[in-house]
Amino acid sequence: MQVTIPALDRQAAQETQGLLDRKTKPTASLGRLEELAVSLAGMTGRRDSSFPRKAVLIGAGDHGVARKGVSLYPPEVTPQMVLNFLAGGAAINVLARRAGAKIFVADAGVASDILPDHPSLLKFSAGKGTADISAGPAMSRQQALACLENGREAVRRIAAEGLDMLALGEMGIGNTTPSSALVAALLGLDPEAVTGRGTGLDAEAWRRKVEVIRAALKVNAPFSGDGLEALEKLGGFEIGLLAGAILEAASRRIPVVLDGFITGAAALVAWRLEPGIKDFLLASHQSREVGHRHILERLGLNAYLNLDLRLGEGSGAALFLPLVDAAEAILREMATFESAGVSDKG
Amino acid sequence: MQVTIPALDRQAAQETQGLLDRKTKPTASLGRLEELAVSLAGMTGRRDSSFPRKAVLIGAGDHGVARKGVSLYPPEVTPQMVLNFLAGGAAINVLARRAGAKIFVADAGVASDILPDHPSLLKFSAGKGTADISAGPAMSRQQALACLENGREAVRRIAAEGLDMLALGEMGIGNTTPSSALVAALLGLDPEAVTGRGTGLDAEAWRRKVEVIRAALKVNAPFSGDGLEALEKLGGFEIGLLAGAILEAASRRIPVVLDGFITGAAALVAWRLEPGIKDFLLASHQSREVGHRHILERLGLNAYLNLDLRLGEGSGAALFLPLVDAAEAILREMATFESAGVSDKG
Repeated sequence: MQVTIPALDRQAAQETQGLLDRKTKPTASLGRLEELAVSLAGMTGRRDSSFPRKAVLIGAGDHGVARKGVSLYPPEVTPQMVLNFLAGGAAINVLARRAGAKIFVADAGVASDILPDHPSLLKFSAGKGTADISAGPAMSRQQALACLENGREAVRRIAAEGLDMLALGEMGIGNTTPSSALVAALLGLDPEAVTGRGTGLDAEAWRRKVEVIRAALKVNAPFSGDGLEALEKLGGFEIGLLAGAILEAASRRIPVVLDGFITGAAALVAWRLEPGIKDFLLASHQSREVGHRHILERLGLNAYLNLDLRLGEGSGAALFLPLVDAAEAILREMATFESAGVSDKG
Repeated sequence: MQVTIPALDRQAAQETQGLLDRKTKPTASLGRLEELAVSLAGMTGRRDSSFPRKAVLIGAGDHGVARKGVSLYPPEVTPQMVLNFLAGGAAINVLARRAGAKIFVADAGVASDILPDHPSLLKFSAGKGTADISAGPAMSRQQALACLENGREAVRRIAAEGLDMLALGEMGIGNTTPSSALVAALLGLDPEAVTGRGTGLDAEAWRRKVEVIRAALKVNAPFSGDGLEALEKLGGFEIGLLAGAILEAASRRIPVVLDGFITGAAALVAWRLEPGIKDFLLASHQSREVGHRHILERLGLNAYLNLDLRLGEGSGAALFLPLVDAAEAILREMATFESAGVSDKG
């Protein structure tokens, strides 16, 4: 796969910091909002950081391992929730509407024949759900390459209509399990350290989930440095698609807003393929999933919100988007010491 | 002062939690957004939590102690910033506009004759700045009662036009010093534990600030259980006005959004006068001022945002307001398992 990730524009970032320092407020007193404005300028290379055209791309896929009792919900909830997204009734619909972001759902590999044609549904299926990772590889090498390419193509299509910022979300019953397996493999961590309660497992079910992940790592033994191999052996179709989307967005200097643990696992896969992508990521929130902080630490990201979310869908990413608009408005609308006739510090 | 603080409506809170549990998401997976929706229902007693009419009330006042080198900025910045608020160029103007909140600035006691008549400026001055608290009381008992009553009257006026949620902000060069003194006095803590760097003091200036606060506590020796005495001896006019505003809003079941350290000190004063007001407070963010967490702990509040803000003005409160709208939209717009035909957990 040929993809070139540009460097951050440090000049644009510095000029933005300089502008913030002339605004009528003590230096750096807007804290992480200022950091956000500066980061965005570095990513885009633009001084007029403005992001009117936002989209949430939700990767959806099914997981053979979901039959192993790793989730409270049955696998048919994946296509049911895709229909809910298309009907506008899910949390992400509500939150994306409030944030002024369009929603696109990519069928990356849902195990269903009921998904309709719909203008918001991108049909990029690499298969009807992955194979059970506790018994062998999740997918073929060809499928892994296909979902990465599908993610890139999804971003190309969305960007053709205009795209200033890409938020990521996901839906896939059981997908915290492949995500934990990927994080354990790619960061060389023990499954216990990166396995959480998902949507609400009790202690016994959590123990079973850890053992399933341990089995997946044993039978697949992926090399920690290879994102493609990890995706093939442990991944999910939606995780691969989201990794491809990250690669494409970063190559276009489009900032990527991560949601929680699963989009974080996708970011790790993309980062192993192209380390430079981490400069184009924003960590919207700190998830309750325990493995999430390992991802953020390794990618050098600092979450903006900590609201104990564990829903996925892109819900945390959408809740973060108003901060982007606030940062942008501060740059554009706020007076300087000079323009307002306010005395600066002595 | 006669003010009656109602009890929370636990029935409305429970019904709201019940509605959230039927939405198409794992139980409690929207974390603190759900907690917010439930809290708001308990405060208002309404099931259709909707807060279209939001206002930011900025209390402004000057402080005799500001001449003691406790701030990087000269006192004339207080009226200059009030003019900036009225002209629409400050951070709080930008952030309140984005949040759809009106701004009202109350001159609670600015040391200036230059403040104009303006529809957003409420003239409630209790004096031209307080006296130096390191040498004696900040104000007279009569002035302390006047600023509390002024805050109540400010809320009555704003509420006369319709008010669903009140966010608080403040402006007053030097006002972290009386705030630290109030927190030390009202919570029985050492000044070092509750004194921060304000708008950016270095280590030597911080040490001087701590000594000023120590002197204020020694010369004034207020009783920790008496909010009115603490306000009279250590307070600021804007802090008293904001405390009065909290009392009035809570008595009307109008949720009050605190900003950072100074509005938190005002909340402590109000809480010592009427402990029940704490049920009507929302902690928008965790400030970088070290004393802030002591306030939140004592009032049993958990901040929603942690963005390293230390600006004041109500900036953190305004950044929080979109979360209120998001919580409200979740309640109103999201599908239930039944309405969307999604399988709930087994």
